[in-house]
Amino acid sequence: MTTKQNTLPVSLGERSYDIVCGPGVLEQAGTLFAPLLKSKRVVIVTDRNVAPLYLDKLIKVLATALIQSESVILPAGEATKSISCFEGLLEDILAMGIERGTTLIALGGGVIGDITGFAASTLLRGIDFIQVPTTLLSQVDSSVGGKTGINARAGKNLIGAFHQPRLVLIDTLSLNSLPKRELLAGYAEVVKYGLIGDRDFFGWLEKNGQALIDGDQDLRRDAILKSCAAKADVVAQDEKEGGVRALLNLGHTFGHALEKECGYGGDLLHGEAVSIGMVMAYEYCAAQGFCSVEDVARLKAHLSSLGMPVDLSGLPCEDWTAELLMKHMMKDKKVKNGKVTFILVRGIGEAFMSSDVSDASLESYLDDLLARSKARN
Amino acid sequence: MTTKQNTLPVSLGERSYDIVCGPGVLEQAGTLFAPLLKSKRVVIVTDRNVAPLYLDKLIKVLATALIQSESVILPAGEATKSISCFEGLLEDILAMGIERGTTLIALGGGVIGDITGFAASTLLRGIDFIQVPTTLLSQVDSSVGGKTGINARAGKNLIGAFHQPRLVLIDTLSLNSLPKRELLAGYAEVVKYGLIGDRDFFGWLEKNGQALIDGDQDLRRDAILKSCAAKADVVAQDEKEGGVRALLNLGHTFGHALEKECGYGGDLLHGEAVSIGMVMAYEYCAAQGFCSVEDVARLKAHLSSLGMPVDLSGLPCEDWTAELLMKHMMKDKKVKNGKVTFILVRGIGEAFMSSDVSDASLESYLDDLLARSKARN
Repeated sequence: MTTKQNTLPVSLGERSYDIVCGPGVLEQAGTLFAPLLKSKRVVIVTDRNVAPLYLDKLIKVLATALIQSESVILPAGEATKSISCFEGLLEDILAMGIERGTTLIALGGGVIGDITGFAASTLLRGIDFIQVPTTLLSQVDSSVGGKTGINARAGKNLIGAFHQPRLVLIDTLSLNSLPKRELLAGYAEVVKYGLIGDRDFFGWLEKNGQALIDGDQDLRRDAILKSCAAKADVVAQDEKEGGVRALLNLGHTFGHALEKECGYGGDLLHGEAVSIGMVMAYEYCAAQGFCSVEDVARLKAHLSSLGMPVDLSGLPCEDWTAELLMKHMMKDKKVKNGKVTFILVRGIGEAFMSSDVSDASLESYLDDLLARSKARN
Repeated sequence: MTTKQNTLPVSLGERSYDIVCGPGVLEQAGTLFAPLLKSKRVVIVTDRNVAPLYLDKLIKVLATALIQSESVILPAGEATKSISCFEGLLEDILAMGIERGTTLIALGGGVIGDITGFAASTLLRGIDFIQVPTTLLSQVDSSVGGKTGINARAGKNLIGAFHQPRLVLIDTLSLNSLPKRELLAGYAEVVKYGLIGDRDFFGWLEKNGQALIDGDQDLRRDAILKSCAAKADVVAQDEKEGGVRALLNLGHTFGHALEKECGYGGDLLHGEAVSIGMVMAYEYCAAQGFCSVEDVARLKAHLSSLGMPVDLSGLPCEDWTAELLMKHMMKDKKVKNGKVTFILVRGIGEAFMSSDVSDASLESYLDDLLARSKARN
C-alpha cells in the first residue's frame, strides 16, 4: 500500500480542499497557505500544550510567505469546548478587527479544530479556516467531514456547524511529541476505517500497526491518508449526515455511553472509549449471530497487542447498569423519532446501519458485559 | 401593481422556500407548516411583547394539524441578541430533548428572527426553522436573505450564519398591533427597495404609502411582497454577500454610525437610522454631483410626509464630529482590505457600489451636515 503521494483531494464541489500529509510538511505552510488566503492575514488558534511546540515555528514559516499572524492560546482540554470559552474566543478574535478575508488556523488537536472551525463558521457569518491537526485522532477524524462544534450542558457537540476547511496540513512529525496514550487513542479511529469497509486495510494494520506506533513516518503518512480517504468516500456520499455517514459512528454509540459515565476529564480518552466501543459492537453482533466469534477475537487481539483497551477493566463500572448505559445511548445526536441508529457488523470490513436493535437484546448483552467486568475488577 | 397573489417563491436551489403573505394567513399555519416538517414537533421562540398577542393562537392553529409545540419566551429588545442570551436559548431548547427533525419557529420581529435562525443553524449542527415575522421591518428585511446572527462587544451582527428558512409566513394583520413608530421604521426599508432599483415602485409608494401605513391590508401585502421580491432578486445573484448584495446596504453605513452613537436602546430605531442614512447617501451624492438635488428633495418630501426622520433633528449630536462618524463607518462588517464599500446613487431607482469614496469628500459632507444640525437643534 506504500505510496509517495502526500496529497489527498477531498471532493465536495465548491467546498473541495486538499489534505497534505507527510513528515516535515509544516515547513511548507507558507507556500501552501498563501494561494488560498483572501487576505494575507491569519489568526492562529492553539492551546497551551501545543503553542510552545509549534506556534513560533508556524508564525515564522508564514512570515516567509509574507503572511501576517496573530494568535489566541486557549487552555488545553475538553473544557475549552464550553460555550463560555467559545464566547471568549469570538470576542478576542473580533477585538483584533478581523475582516471577511481573514483566515483562522486551527493548530492543535480535536478540541482546537472543533472550536476554531465553529468560530470560523460564525464570525462575520462565516470566514475561512485551515486545519493543522497535531494529534493522530484529529488527523484521521476531524480532517474530513467538516464537523465543528462545542459542548452544551445537555451533551457533547450539540452546538456546531458543518464548515469545510480550505486545507488540512498534517505533519506526521507532530506525532513525535504526542503522549503514547493519545497516539493509541487516535489509532482506534484508524482501525475503525478497516472495520467499517476495508478488511485488507485491517490486515495491513495488523502487520504495520506496531511500527507505525513506534514512529515510522512513511507508515504513519500512509495510514493517515488511507483513513482520510475512507472517511472522504463516505462524506462525499452524505455531507450533512443523513444516511451512510452514520457508519463512521461504529463503536461510538457504545463508546459515548462509557465517556458519559467517566466524565470528560481524561480518565477515559475518546479514542479509548471508541476502542472499547468497537469491541462491544463486535461482541454484541457475535451474540446476535451477525458476525463470527473469530473476527471478535481477531479485533481484540490486534487492539490488545498494541496496548489498547478492549473491555471495561479499570473503569469505575461498579454501579453501572445496562439501563444506565442505554439511557446515555438514547441521548445520542443521531436519534431519529426516538430510535437510535446502531452501526452493526457482519465481520471485519463489513459494517451496516440498523435502527431496529431491540432493547432486550441490548440489555442482555450489556448485563453480560457488566457481570464479566465486575467479576474481574 | 395590485395582485391577488399571496405567495412569493424564493429560488435558491435546494434551499428554496416560499413567502406566504396576506391578511389572516396565520390561520393557515398548520396546513402550511405540516408538509415541511420532518417531525410533527416544533419549538416556537418568541418574546414577551409578542407572546400575549399571537403565541396561544399559533399553538392552537398548529395543534389542529397535529403539530406539537413547545415554546421559549425571551425578553423583548436588542439586548436579547447577546451571546449570553443566545447561550440560554440553546440550553433551554436542548433541555427539551430535541432531535434533528425538530423545527424552530421564529414568532416576532427582527431580533427573534435573527437569534432563532442562528440557533437553528447551530443546534445539532443545523435544524430547520420557519419565520413568522410580526413587524414590517422583519417582514421586508429578514424574510429574504438567510442572514441570522447575534451581537458581539465589537459590534452588531458580527456573529452568525447564513441559514435559509423553510417558509416565511407574513400575516399583515399583525401590523395592526405594531406601534406606529415601528411601522414607519420598517417602512424605511420598503422605500429602500424603490431607491435601489425601482423608480416606479417609489412612485407607487408616494401614491399609496399613507394608505398602507393607515392600515390598508391589500396595499401592505403588495408592498411587502414587492420588497421581498426585490430583495430576493439581489440575494439570488449573491447569496453569501460577495458583491451585488451590498446594494441592500443603501443608507445603512451612514445609519449604523448614527445607531452606534445613539446606542441601541430605542432612542433611534434601526429603520429610523436607515431613513436618515438614505437621505445622507442622497445628499452626499448630490454634493458630489452624482444625483440631482430634485431627487433628494423628492425623497425627503416622501419620508417627511409620513412622519419619518430625514435629518439629525432630535439626536444628541452636539458632540459628534465627522471623524467620529467615519470611525464607526470603518467598523462595518463589509470592510475589505481596510476599504468600506459605499452604496451611492445616481437618482431614485439607481444605486451603485463604490469603494473609492474619498475621506475628504465624506468629511466635508459630514461637517456640513453636523453644522446644519447643530445650528438647528
